[in-house]
Amino acid sequence: MSKQMPPAHPFDDDKLHEECGIFGVIGVTDAANFVALGLHALQHRGQEAGGIVCHHPDHGFNHARRFGYVRDNFTKQSLMETLPGPLSIGHVRYSTAGGKAPVIRDVQPFFGEFAMGGAAIAHNGNITNADALRRELIERGSIFQSNSDSECIIHLMARSLQRTIPDRMEDALRRVEGAFSVVAMTRTKLIGVRDPLGVRPLVLGQLGDGWVLSSETCALDIIGAAFVREIEPGEMVVITDKGVESRRPFKPLSPRFCIFEHVYFSRPDSIIGGRSVYETRRQIGIELAREAPVEADIVCPVPDSGTPAAIGYSHESGIPYAMGIIRNQYMGRTFIEPTEQIRNMGVRLKLNVNRALIKDKRVILVDDSVVRGTTSRKIKEMILDAGAKEVHFRIASPPTAWPCFYGVDTPQREKLLAATMSEDEMRDHLAVDSLKFITLDGLYRAVGEASGRNAKCPQYCDACFSGEYPVAPSDQIEKGFELKAAE
Amino acid sequence: MSKQMPPAHPFDDDKLHEECGIFGVIGVTDAANFVALGLHALQHRGQEAGGIVCHHPDHGFNHARRFGYVRDNFTKQSLMETLPGPLSIGHVRYSTAGGKAPVIRDVQPFFGEFAMGGAAIAHNGNITNADALRRELIERGSIFQSNSDSECIIHLMARSLQRTIPDRMEDALRRVEGAFSVVAMTRTKLIGVRDPLGVRPLVLGQLGDGWVLSSETCALDIIGAAFVREIEPGEMVVITDKGVESRRPFKPLSPRFCIFEHVYFSRPDSIIGGRSVYETRRQIGIELAREAPVEADIVCPVPDSGTPAAIGYSHESGIPYAMGIIRNQYMGRTFIEPTEQIRNMGVRLKLNVNRALIKDKRVILVDDSVVRGTTSRKIKEMILDAGAKEVHFRIASPPTAWPCFYGVDTPQREKLLAATMSEDEMRDHLAVDSLKFITLDGLYRAVGEASGRNAKCPQYCDACFSGEYPVAPSDQIEKGFELKAAE
Amino acid sequence: MSKQMPPAHPFDDDKLHEECGIFGVIGVTDAANFVALGLHALQHRGQEAGGIVCHHPDHGFNHARRFGYVRDNFTKQSLMETLPGPLSIGHVRYSTAGGKAPVIRDVQPFFGEFAMGGAAIAHNGNITNADALRRELIERGSIFQSNSDSECIIHLMARSLQRTIPDRMEDALRRVEGAFSVVAMTRTKLIGVRDPLGVRPLVLGQLGDGWVLSSETCALDIIGAAFVREIEPGEMVVITDKGVESRRPFKPLSPRFCIFEHVYFSRPDSIIGGRSVYETRRQIGIELAREAPVEADIVCPVPDSGTPAAIGYSHESGIPYAMGIIRNQYMGRTFIEPTEQIRNMGVRLKLNVNRALIKDKRVILVDDSVVRGTTSRKIKEMILDAGAKEVHFRIASPPTAWPCFYGVDTPQREKLLAATMSEDEMRDHLAVDSLKFITLDGLYRAVGEASGRNAKCPQYCDACFSGEYPVAPSDQIEKGFELKAAE
Amino acid sequence: MSKQMPPAHPFDDDKLHEECGIFGVIGVTDAANFVALGLHALQHRGQEAGGIVCHHPDHGFNHARRFGYVRDNFTKQSLMETLPGPLSIGHVRYSTAGGKAPVIRDVQPFFGEFAMGGAAIAHNGNITNADALRRELIERGSIFQSNSDSECIIHLMARSLQRTIPDRMEDALRRVEGAFSVVAMTRTKLIGVRDPLGVRPLVLGQLGDGWVLSSETCALDIIGAAFVREIEPGEMVVITDKGVESRRPFKPLSPRFCIFEHVYFSRPDSIIGGRSVYETRRQIGIELAREAPVEADIVCPVPDSGTPAAIGYSHESGIPYAMGIIRNQYMGRTFIEPTEQIRNMGVRLKLNVNRALIKDKRVILVDDSVVRGTTSRKIKEMILDAGAKEVHFRIASPPTAWPCFYGVDTPQREKLLAATMSEDEMRDHLAVDSLKFITLDGLYRAVGEASGRNAKCPQYCDACFSGEYPVAPSDQIEKGFELKAAE
Repeated sequence: MSKQMPPAHPFDDDKLHEECGIFGVIGVTDAANFVALGLHALQHRGQEAGGIVCHHPDHGFNHARRFGYVRDNFTKQSLMETLPGPLSIGHVRYSTAGGKAPVIRDVQPFFGEFAMGGAAIAHNGNITNADALRRELIERGSIFQSNSDSECIIHLMARSLQRTIPDRMEDALRRVEGAFSVVAMTRTKLIGVRDPLGVRPLVLGQLGDGWVLSSETCALDIIGAAFVREIEPGEMVVITDKGVESRRPFKPLSPRFCIFEHVYFSRPDSIIGGRSVYETRRQIGIELAREAPVEADIVCPVPDSGTPAAIGYSHESGIPYAMGIIRNQYMGRTFIEPTEQIRNMGVRLKLNVNRALIKDKRVILVDDSVVRGTTSRKIKEMILDAGAKEVHFRIASPPTAWPCFYGVDTPQREKLLAATMSEDEMRDHLAVDSLKFITLDGLYRAVGEASGRNAKCPQYCDACFSGEYPVAPSDQIEKGFELKAAE
Repeated sequence: MSKQMPPAHPFDDDKLHEECGIFGVIGVTDAANFVALGLHALQHRGQEAGGIVCHHPDHGFNHARRFGYVRDNFTKQSLMETLPGPLSIGHVRYSTAGGKAPVIRDVQPFFGEFAMGGAAIAHNGNITNADALRRELIERGSIFQSNSDSECIIHLMARSLQRTIPDRMEDALRRVEGAFSVVAMTRTKLIGVRDPLGVRPLVLGQLGDGWVLSSETCALDIIGAAFVREIEPGEMVVITDKGVESRRPFKPLSPRFCIFEHVYFSRPDSIIGGRSVYETRRQIGIELAREAPVEADIVCPVPDSGTPAAIGYSHESGIPYAMGIIRNQYMGRTFIEPTEQIRNMGVRLKLNVNRALIKDKRVILVDDSVVRGTTSRKIKEMILDAGAKEVHFRIASPPTAWPCFYGVDTPQREKLLAATMSEDEMRDHLAVDSLKFITLDGLYRAVGEASGRNAKCPQYCDACFSGEYPVAPSDQIEKGFELKAAE
Repeated sequence: MSKQMPPAHPFDDDKLHEECGIFGVIGVTDAANFVALGLHALQHRGQEAGGIVCHHPDHGFNHARRFGYVRDNFTKQSLMETLPGPLSIGHVRYSTAGGKAPVIRDVQPFFGEFAMGGAAIAHNGNITNADALRRELIERGSIFQSNSDSECIIHLMARSLQRTIPDRMEDALRRVEGAFSVVAMTRTKLIGVRDPLGVRPLVLGQLGDGWVLSSETCALDIIGAAFVREIEPGEMVVITDKGVESRRPFKPLSPRFCIFEHVYFSRPDSIIGGRSVYETRRQIGIELAREAPVEADIVCPVPDSGTPAAIGYSHESGIPYAMGIIRNQYMGRTFIEPTEQIRNMGVRLKLNVNRALIKDKRVILVDDSVVRGTTSRKIKEMILDAGAKEVHFRIASPPTAWPCFYGVDTPQREKLLAATMSEDEMRDHLAVDSLKFITLDGLYRAVGEASGRNAKCPQYCDACFSGEYPVAPSDQIEKGFELKAAE
Repeated sequence: MSKQMPPAHPFDDDKLHEECGIFGVIGVTDAANFVALGLHALQHRGQEAGGIVCHHPDHGFNHARRFGYVRDNFTKQSLMETLPGPLSIGHVRYSTAGGKAPVIRDVQPFFGEFAMGGAAIAHNGNITNADALRRELIERGSIFQSNSDSECIIHLMARSLQRTIPDRMEDALRRVEGAFSVVAMTRTKLIGVRDPLGVRPLVLGQLGDGWVLSSETCALDIIGAAFVREIEPGEMVVITDKGVESRRPFKPLSPRFCIFEHVYFSRPDSIIGGRSVYETRRQIGIELAREAPVEADIVCPVPDSGTPAAIGYSHESGIPYAMGIIRNQYMGRTFIEPTEQIRNMGVRLKLNVNRALIKDKRVILVDDSVVRGTTSRKIKEMILDAGAKEVHFRIASPPTAWPCFYGVDTPQREKLLAATMSEDEMRDHLAVDSLKFITLDGLYRAVGEASGRNAKCPQYCDACFSGEYPVAPSDQIEKGFELKAAE
């Protein structure tokens, strides 16, 4: 399956991955077509599989789940005709928390038939006490169909004593720990929820008389919906043909939005907190040029995610911006390696160095992050092979030293380069002339916090950089994960 | 089929298309694996289908032809194992001259069994007297298997009275008019030819003890081969384990390399005439800034092909470079259009405007060419919708007013915007604040001809801009095509 | 899907259908391979889909479900390698009680994870109070994944207060009404159950040190297992590596085995009650010749299921047996009907009359049953077209006048020819020279009840002929089905 | 591919195979639909692949070739809509003379574009001088596309100096040696030819105002066409909308129709020489009972092809006919063999012994032929395992001791059991109580030659039994095949 789905990002296998995108529409004809478009715009948040559920007064609930890209599945007339009705939600996903081989049963939205009617939910985030909840539910006679942590929510709803589905959902989500943005639907309601910390994004849009919920604003743009506002941390909205009702099911907490959404996950044309992500990333480049200047001839982005920061770095430093690395538009993953060994073949399938440009130059390479460091090393080699005089890495995020347990696929701690090495050790390991990461304070400034990070109560979730987890990852701790020692 | 193969370029349907890429290797183990990699690097020259032929002393000739991307077909162990041997050639193609529905029989390389053994050929270009040749050959008893103009070559070879395959190939190609670069193979020889004008590219590379022929240098890079030289216009090379023999089968003519290879067809990391295509395109942007300056706030490329010229324009003009238009990495082509009309849905599937950046700005949009003008119009609308104050188009090629008959897929003349409108009329038609094309002289300067175009004997084939065809398109003239009136 | 699976029986669409076959093995290496073979031998009991679950001490439970024939799915090395372990059960099915479009979620075996470990069940039969049970379970918080009546069993097990899985299964099955033979497994146990009436078959076999449960003995033969005995009505066997434990979870009742298994469902090489089904069917032909003799030239079977009874009829009557109708081995279902109407095209795709043989003959046609009568009519027409002088139908079962609610797919009562017509009316409707069904008493004699049917307490379930239902079909009655009026 | 196409005959791999069936229709709307039906009825003559060519005045020639069964390919609306027009021919094939892996290029009909228009041909038989012809044609500049001997015909036609296609076809076929029945078409003509010996069958039918050519009459029946007559040996018919023109292109010879068509190849409901093939086979059984009587309890056919002869044997001998071997309707070929060895698993997938019937009986098994003898041996073992007291084989054809070079797939001579053993040695090899083949004279009597075989000038081609080849197999002789020594 994966052979058929080459990654859209060239270094997909050495990046952190957002695990899900969610989208829902109410009050329009053939809502599932809009959901398909919305999921297409959110494809960068999950490429493994997608699912759509919809409801039509005459035809009831219908659904479809497919492995592969939205554009390859939810574009077929024959399939979309099976998904009628004015109310629909959808989900794209990268992989389960379990990390096992993908099975179609794990693809959301999940559906449950309750005594008062059916409901479907789509979840972005990760439930940190899912193992404990699952054990308890099985004890009581629930039969799980998937390996997904998200399935707990629908079983908790099935067993709730409340009378309406939104009430049952409140009931269920109060048992759940971790990070979650949820889009759900009944026969007549579209529901959106964000956890009390608001770790994962969720926005509200308007489309004619209808309403839209989406992980990012870029998916509002594709269907021409107007951006209304972000769903607030800890808020539940229940949308019917009478309008949007706002509820507050949880005890209030200080918000901790995921700062990595700014750095890498979200699309550059999405708007978070009133500013385009592109502009924030350009700002990161500017901060980086201030924090870590170096003499050089050209500033080159590592395509494609390093581009805005490289533009910012070039602008601030005055060093010319240039495309020293050209991406192959038709990336592949799995060619047969010929007998004569090709050096760095995996990288060559994805990009090529612009040799005539690089030769004899001092090159600043701007990348968004360093995870395992494997591709950074290969790119450096290709740049040197092409005759560069010096190579300086500038990284648009602080060292990634801790795994994320809130819906992002990270390697185990040991695999993170920054978990075991200092910045200097990493520079030597990569064998480059210099290597600099933006500081955590610099990053906070770039996202708009003029005075940097509030160490007492950080404005964002930055656990992957700081090791400070705003919600204790209880399943992981039970399995032996060690939190950062108190200082 | 096309549903499964979304274009890698967002405005694929409003561009001129190179019709083919060719590649061949001799003297390495499992040559077909290298050919697969080479074709992958040449995929931008033809996305519809690909084919590989190879020869092994024990297993004879083998071949495979497939619709779709190289990465989706020629990466499977089970297929590649059927393609053994040290000698192999391959072909990627966009479509036949015929323009009919694609059939696998039309996919090259073509193979023929001759009395002295088999031979296979792969052709980039177009034979302008193919119809007449086909009629003649059928009269004599040849049975054609494809609709391709290229098949004439192999039938002419089959009927040649010469004794060796290279001699038969010379014989055949002297009957052929038009533009052609050919890579061919026998059981022991790899052969490369360019027509006397050298319209289409072909380069020679070296890989250990083996040799490589390729449409572009970027495909040498992917397999780690060293670039040796370009095959010269009118040259035939016959490569065996004894080395490279150079022949001159044709009467010498002044070369007329296709200038559009610089503008759009070739990959930016390929090297033509000693300079990277990226650098040439950046130079076009510099020329364009000199020829057609305008006051504005930002310079934005139309992604992705306008990028190098936009960088050049920004550099020369001092106006900041910015990504005002963001491309969707997971482009789709054929979503079901929801009932409520989405304005410019086709464009939205491919890109999104960076609204926060564009708002209230005077924007220069740099694009590589205007063919039908349909997408230029849609992009302009999206930019204005996002709140731009002014929109200025700058085009990195002269007005495309004439069809190409030398291996490029162009619309009929009536469909070319520049065939029926002046520059001012086009500006009004597109309803933009200004529209400027680089001049033909400016383009010649950018590609390195300091004194511009030699009107008496142009240094390049620029028929698509000038209407001056270096080889009379005789089949087309017979069908009623009217040449430009002599001035 | 159905295009890919032409029926193995030519008149599949005018027959009653067994809905399921079940099979299980314990105590052999790679048990799933044996299950695949067993299901292949039981394919006549269900062609729509098949599923296998297995357990391996190191790899846990694994499963696969597929639409289509066993031979097309469970023969692939790559699939079968995912199904390791010494314990496995499987299921082939025709369709759900619901009669909706097939969905893979409905394909058995069903699996549930309980507090004490996982269990899987495969069910042959039909639960007549499934609707009521489902409503009750949903009220209590169970989430159903399929439309299958059989899923009730696993949810009842999940909620049982018993401590072991066999005990939970007893608990669950005591709540269930209707006909059921069940094969189930835990990590260490293979379990078989028949309902108290023993409506559906289930037999026990031995294979080396291992044990086998199967719907029919023909599936023991294919793997070389020895037939041990039939599981008794109302019996549960729990098989471990220590041997076979027999339990009696239900109150004892007089057995009512389905008499139609003898007539049509079971394979002719299976053994029921110590006699081969082939021999029983031949005996039916003998009884029929005694009850309904007629002067004629040849006795022809309607292929293939009428063959044994035709041989018996020929033997008893002395009228020569002949193949007047030849079956096409490559049956198709869905050719495009050419413009010129072909009479009886559907039938012609499946068989052809042996015209030279039939011409001018008085023909006795022996068929197993008449359901809607549609194909009987077409066959008669083809026989007359071929020049037969007389056509006499002899049917190896009594008139089918009542639907089955115990695991057989029957048309609604109104569609059954015998529900609305007398034997003479059917003869006139089919326009044949004579039409005779075997009597119910004759059928009982043929299956070995020398004195015929015991009207007070019939030895078999013959509801489809007599309208006497041994278990009240409560869901159906609630939906409006009217039982036969008491006489 | 073969996994998807289980054989319709259980012992397909130990049988001789007809290599082709051909069919053509003119003068009806959407002729290709009729051709699809005809090919379906001829599927027993070739299961590997099928092809259809058709012509429509507005849409020209169209074609489709597919691996697999007709019912799985030529039943799709989307495909059949691409095949319009009143004139169409088709072909089903088993394999090429070459015996290499199947390639779609080898699938007939073959098409050629000539100066006077296109033509397509479909060939049943084998050209015994194809190698020599191919060498000659390549010398002259023809390019072959397939490995098929039949392609010679279309190249010979392309080079003929004649002016019309039928004249070119006469010209071409006079150069061809061997056995051939050909159906061909131009834009307006349907053409049928049989070689001068008439080795392969070809019949003419009428369908309303249209005409039909078919390998066998059973394919006329499926479309409701009336049988008109057999095409005569050495006859060519040219059919247009003006009617049927008969030509005689060859020097007359005594006919030698293939006697094995009676024994096995043709369908039992086809009519050859005025008698149904079923009746001829029954007559073979009668002759066999006279020639080789034995005391026994039951006569059992080896399904399915032994059935008519078994009925005849039973009738003549008075020994009851019984189905001792039951065929699995869902035959498979490639299940994974479980670790514990299953004896004769390959056979068990296809059939099962009716144990209760066979036990303690003396059994006569009637089979159509013995080729390698491998399955005869396995069947005997299964019968003995089931407890038979004696096993007597009676074979409905003489010993098959010589390969066929006229369009039948036979093993090499060494692999034919009868090529190396006498009848007694074969009996001992198979370890049965008795083994008797019908004599060649007996076979001739059964097909209607009352006085048996005319040794001077045999009425049929019986080379596979007698080693007397009516046309010298010249390509084979050149490769070293040794003819039977003159006696």
